[in-house]
Amino acid sequence: MAEKLSARLRVEARGGAVDLAAYDPRGTPGGPKGKAAGLAGIQEMRARLAELQERLFAQSAVGGDPRRVLVVLQGMDTSGKGGTVKHVVSGLNPAGLRVRAFKAPTAQERRHDFLWRVRRALPQAGEIGVFDRSHYEDVLIVRVHDLVPRSVWSRRYAAINRFEQSLAESGVSLLKVFLHISPEEQRARLLARLERPDKHWKFSPDDVFERERWPAYREAYEAVLARCSTEAAPWYVVPADRKWYRNWAVSRLLLEHLEQLRPAYPQPDLDVAKYRRLLLAT
Amino acid sequence: MAEKLSARLRVEARGGAVDLAAYDPRGTPGGPKGKAAGLAGIQEMRARLAELQERLFAQSAVGGDPRRVLVVLQGMDTSGKGGTVKHVVSGLNPAGLRVRAFKAPTAQERRHDFLWRVRRALPQAGEIGVFDRSHYEDVLIVRVHDLVPRSVWSRRYAAINRFEQSLAESGVSLLKVFLHISPEEQRARLLARLERPDKHWKFSPDDVFERERWPAYREAYEAVLARCSTEAAPWYVVPADRKWYRNWAVSRLLLEHLEQLRPAYPQPDLDVAKYRRLLLAT
Repeated sequence: MAEKLSARLRVEARGGAVDLAAYDPRGTPGGPKGKAAGLAGIQEMRARLAELQERLFAQSAVGGDPRRVLVVLQGMDTSGKGGTVKHVVSGLNPAGLRVRAFKAPTAQERRHDFLWRVRRALPQAGEIGVFDRSHYEDVLIVRVHDLVPRSVWSRRYAAINRFEQSLAESGVSLLKVFLHISPEEQRARLLARLERPDKHWKFSPDDVFERERWPAYREAYEAVLARCSTEAAPWYVVPADRKWYRNWAVSRLLLEHLEQLRPAYPQPDLDVAKYRRLLLAT
Repeated sequence: MAEKLSARLRVEARGGAVDLAAYDPRGTPGGPKGKAAGLAGIQEMRARLAELQERLFAQSAVGGDPRRVLVVLQGMDTSGKGGTVKHVVSGLNPAGLRVRAFKAPTAQERRHDFLWRVRRALPQAGEIGVFDRSHYEDVLIVRVHDLVPRSVWSRRYAAINRFEQSLAESGVSLLKVFLHISPEEQRARLLARLERPDKHWKFSPDDVFERERWPAYREAYEAVLARCSTEAAPWYVVPADRKWYRNWAVSRLLLEHLEQLRPAYPQPDLDVAKYRRLLLAT
């Protein structure tokens, strides 16, 4: 493997603008050739992901290592946040996993600052956390729908960067993934939900009306990617029109992320002979 | 399928005593013939479990159904609580799952009553929660080690029954599973951990010394099964010396439990033709 996928998909804003038109939602950058190879690759990565997760968990349980991973999934409706949890994250051991979906804030949550509910849902040491939506909604839907004045949301980008910097310093390493789909693919997925009565519960009329605001969302996402892809917590753009590529790419990004942490099984100082003797005597 | 596994493994104490000697830890009651058939059965149940979980989740998300399931796993060290999470629970969608392991209480937890930390870890509506150890530790290790006076722990059985009754009334349906292993099997598993350096982090010298208290733990478990297997929240004894049977039996119990809830996809009143038209116009 010449180039890492993370290097390829990482958003390097360097203070400039980001133009999502430059990213093809149907693309498969760095990916295997076709769906069959993609699915095989995902299958292959599952065991390695589970092993790295166990090492991370063990290091914290025994070694007191404070590190943990937080995967943030963002993207338009039907972009596959839930599907990624179902097909990628399901390969991990549920004991070391903390998945949280963020909806419209509750009355209690609204009485606190916008990061309050996020802080309470963070993974603990040794865990892998996954956010299906996140604090970024407070500069996405909130911005698009003018839910707070511009003077308020516009200050949040810097607040988010400081927050994520402080997370990184306390051992939370972030993997922020934007699932990039096209409006055409979204239409096809919403139509598919309408076709199947057992999927009607997933269908929200709002999803149809939100499509009218596609350009505003696009702009809001571009602002996020331009302003919040930092050294401590970069953004990755994953083309998501093809589900197999999306699952493959997120698996691969998570694998590279975990490998970079180099978790290792703790080797406690254990008198093996002594305990073997004691056990055989009981 | 003539008899349900849950009917077979359920503890019917009826106010009398429970004698664990009557339960063979190597037994495979109601199970398939042999390991290969067991593993195939587990595989087969995974899809059905995932489907029932999704229905439960959908009913709460759209229909406002308050129901949720809480699996409580108890058993001696190495009995396979973690293994059950890894091999059985991993078949479920992590988005609707809340796994929590209970260790010795923290200083903060000790400032509250023994049920406090349990209440905070309950699954939310539509979720499946799994406890690796639970409030039962407060009448198990606490009783065996005299961590509180007898007058305190002896009142907890009734407190637990009231607590679980109130959970049942608020929609939390409990599946309490005692993983029953023999001291010989435990020795074999602890020895196996000693043999493998990558398993040393799981080895605790305490586990060896706790073996001396096996009869006291047995008595404490018998008291739990006799006093806390109620109509609202019965206990199930799963023979756990054979890992394949343990995983098969817990899968089966969970399947029967979910089937009994009869979750169904909500059928919201949806004007399919209207939304199809709107979508095709955008």
